[in-house]
Amino acid sequence: MVTSMAAKQTKEMKIEEKKAILPPKSNFSEWYNELLLAGEIMDVRYPVKGLYVWFPFGFEVRKRTYAIIRELLDKDHKEAMFPLLIPETEFMKEAEHIKGFENEVYWVTRGGKNELDVKLALRPTSETAIYPMYKVWVRSHADLPIKIYQIVNTFRYETKHTRPLIRLREITSFKEAHTVHATWDEAAKQVDVAVQIYIEFYKRLAIPTIVSKRPQWDKFPGADYTMAVDTLMPDNKTLQIGTAHHLGNNFAKTFDIKYEGMNGEQEYAQQTCYGISERCIAALVSIHGDDRGLVFPPEIAPVQVVVIPVLFGKSEEIIKACREVAERLKDEGFRVALDESDERPGAKYYKWEMKGVPLRVEIGPRDLKNNAATVVRRDSGSKEIVPIDKLAEEIKKRVIDIHKSLLGKARKSMEERIFDCNTLDEVRDKISEGIARIPWCGEQECGLAMEETVGAGILGIPESELGRGYGSCPICKKETTSIAIMSKTY
Amino acid sequence: MVTSMAAKQTKEMKIEEKKAILPPKSNFSEWYNELLLAGEIMDVRYPVKGLYVWFPFGFEVRKRTYAIIRELLDKDHKEAMFPLLIPETEFMKEAEHIKGFENEVYWVTRGGKNELDVKLALRPTSETAIYPMYKVWVRSHADLPIKIYQIVNTFRYETKHTRPLIRLREITSFKEAHTVHATWDEAAKQVDVAVQIYIEFYKRLAIPTIVSKRPQWDKFPGADYTMAVDTLMPDNKTLQIGTAHHLGNNFAKTFDIKYEGMNGEQEYAQQTCYGISERCIAALVSIHGDDRGLVFPPEIAPVQVVVIPVLFGKSEEIIKACREVAERLKDEGFRVALDESDERPGAKYYKWEMKGVPLRVEIGPRDLKNNAATVVRRDSGSKEIVPIDKLAEEIKKRVIDIHKSLLGKARKSMEERIFDCNTLDEVRDKISEGIARIPWCGEQECGLAMEETVGAGILGIPESELGRGYGSCPICKKETTSIAIMSKTY
Repeated sequence: MVTSMAAKQTKEMKIEEKKAILPPKSNFSEWYNELLLAGEIMDVRYPVKGLYVWFPFGFEVRKRTYAIIRELLDKDHKEAMFPLLIPETEFMKEAEHIKGFENEVYWVTRGGKNELDVKLALRPTSETAIYPMYKVWVRSHADLPIKIYQIVNTFRYETKHTRPLIRLREITSFKEAHTVHATWDEAAKQVDVAVQIYIEFYKRLAIPTIVSKRPQWDKFPGADYTMAVDTLMPDNKTLQIGTAHHLGNNFAKTFDIKYEGMNGEQEYAQQTCYGISERCIAALVSIHGDDRGLVFPPEIAPVQVVVIPVLFGKSEEIIKACREVAERLKDEGFRVALDESDERPGAKYYKWEMKGVPLRVEIGPRDLKNNAATVVRRDSGSKEIVPIDKLAEEIKKRVIDIHKSLLGKARKSMEERIFDCNTLDEVRDKISEGIARIPWCGEQECGLAMEETVGAGILGIPESELGRGYGSCPICKKETTSIAIMSKTY
Repeated sequence: MVTSMAAKQTKEMKIEEKKAILPPKSNFSEWYNELLLAGEIMDVRYPVKGLYVWFPFGFEVRKRTYAIIRELLDKDHKEAMFPLLIPETEFMKEAEHIKGFENEVYWVTRGGKNELDVKLALRPTSETAIYPMYKVWVRSHADLPIKIYQIVNTFRYETKHTRPLIRLREITSFKEAHTVHATWDEAAKQVDVAVQIYIEFYKRLAIPTIVSKRPQWDKFPGADYTMAVDTLMPDNKTLQIGTAHHLGNNFAKTFDIKYEGMNGEQEYAQQTCYGISERCIAALVSIHGDDRGLVFPPEIAPVQVVVIPVLFGKSEEIIKACREVAERLKDEGFRVALDESDERPGAKYYKWEMKGVPLRVEIGPRDLKNNAATVVRRDSGSKEIVPIDKLAEEIKKRVIDIHKSLLGKARKSMEERIFDCNTLDEVRDKISEGIARIPWCGEQECGLAMEETVGAGILGIPESELGRGYGSCPICKKETTSIAIMSKTY
């Protein structure tokens, strides 16, 4: 009897599976777009190119993700909020900065029926909105350091192909920090701190990262240098998911941000800024998701455990047991859903798998008889029978284990797609499969030639072991111990 | 000895007080502007009229205030996020709505160096951004009701005098909810629910409210009717701090939002929307603040208790006691600051009073000797000696009492400024002192004539007792049991 039920159930699941509208993940680009819609992360049907809508479910993922950023920053930063609109007069002050952004800035030119006297830029990033205030706020060395961040919407008039969470016209969730320091070295230290915060943040999302200093020709417009955090996407392109810029005193000079030093002298301040956008969620969704839909690390998952009664006909006993289990797990602090709907179990499995719920607890007649439940992991699909009175404890263990296991799997997947190359031919050969390591002397001329030859970018020379080795630059043939990484990029 | 210390302390405080930069609250307009700066709520020095900067401290107040809105809405609503930019084609669809907003909309006309094909409006409110999506989301009666809100920045090209938190060009913190229902009655019920949520919200801020249905000529552009929540500001003008609109099926017809009913028929949906902006913080700051600065209800206060060692010369013992007390109060869940700085006690009092900290705990030599502390309330200035081992318990009591007492005081202050009038001359006489009650037949013609004669607005006929009475309309002389309220408004 039980066996035939299980057989029936399996059959039902197969029928349900056929309804899946998701293309396989190997077809990444389509899978990604469909997943965002089917998983109710973002609605791409808003009537302007490059603008998207956060579904309530997606917004909850965003909320939990940004709560981690806030938690990490709040230890040592203050949150504030600056205006969206930047007068052209301020925006145009920093020459390199303008050059970097002028092709992608949206301009407000009209208010009501009037032409504005001074055009207003929608911030593409907020240096030119914040630094006029820093000029007012910074007076003496005692005011320093200042470490402020905001989480706001920013805008880029993208002419390239747009893509939700990755390349947008409204970046809805830009976390940008802006710090002010007395010395260049202190600012450099802050850049390191920022990078460490970002690495920690991405660990919490179970996302592996590579940190490297961007080549000079690829740094932030107006910066002394840029540190970048990248990850490798399923389609073998890297995604830049965080940057930290040492601004030196470039902006301080432009915006006249000076402080009085210990001995009364006026000094230009040294600054940094660092940002993360909703690309963090693009990486989260892309790296962990699979053919069945979303997969979330438990800390992020809006629902952590779904309890599903496995019924054939009505069974008050099973429903009662499920309710009790759901309540008990809630009391233990888990975010729990109990699916008592009339759908068949297979349809329920499909639905909650799509939503990335890390753990499913099934209780069927046999489970109930044994005073047990079946616990199914979303990440591995593994099924285990667990006594009901040990459920909370066992789920706690699995929550930790799922996070570790997702991070481990993602790391392994990235590492397997990093290739040691000695020639540019090898790089060209391997670049569509992931990241290529290749010796580079560090000279701009050679770097640009390498990019040109391969048709892919140099991300930089990684800080880690990944950036060290031995070989000769493929262009000038000079021997070097520095290894650059190259990849196709978003 | 102790007496002379106390005397010295009092003298110091007087010196400190002289440094106060705040004009008296009776000079409301100047007091308000100075308070926002001195209390570090908003910086008004941003180089564009009508745009302001949230200081970190003000942002914390905002965060706690909006956490209450979220808490109240999350019981029955979902949070989402829609784009800022609305294509002119969508924006221009609803005729009344356009009329209501066309003079105050900012338009993006350029991207990079290109003129845009379709101009983009910065949302003044999001009906026209959200409802094209609702058209897609609403299919059947089973999809209803939808109750979604977002907290976003919205824009108004204000040509009138701007004022931080009250009349701005960037409303940084607009909470707007948008619901969809099957029937007009259900939507009407939702409007009532919204109003109840708002009353509850303002109680949490210790702000008294008056609810009334706005006259037809003052309703939201495109609505069937508008319910409004007002409060009375210290300068005797009312501030509209929340509105809830029954949209009927006006927008549903424009945006083609239809659902399939029980019997397969296609019906237009019924909608509501309701909003609260950072005016809630303007009211909070204005109503509770005093000549010494900010006064916060404990739930909102970024710091709830400040512990100040009252030292004359070094005293390790006092500092140690203060640290212990601060730690214990933190453990009890209070937000605590311990001011160990080198400033004199008077300067510290001044500083923390300005920041609106509800309770100050002072420990001086005499307190320590008695194993006690002096607890000073920010709202009343009352001082009491409390044994240290009862401190947490006593502070808990006061936290509740301060909230009650602030609300009571604010209610009394509002009630004292509501005047019963029988003639428009009386209204004209009293209107600069607060709110005037006057019989009104409810006819638009009479209402407009009353407004014209008095030079002030009719807020509506309040829902409460305030709106009931007996008299004759000052224009048509018809007898009525409806009492309108009139006031000068922001």
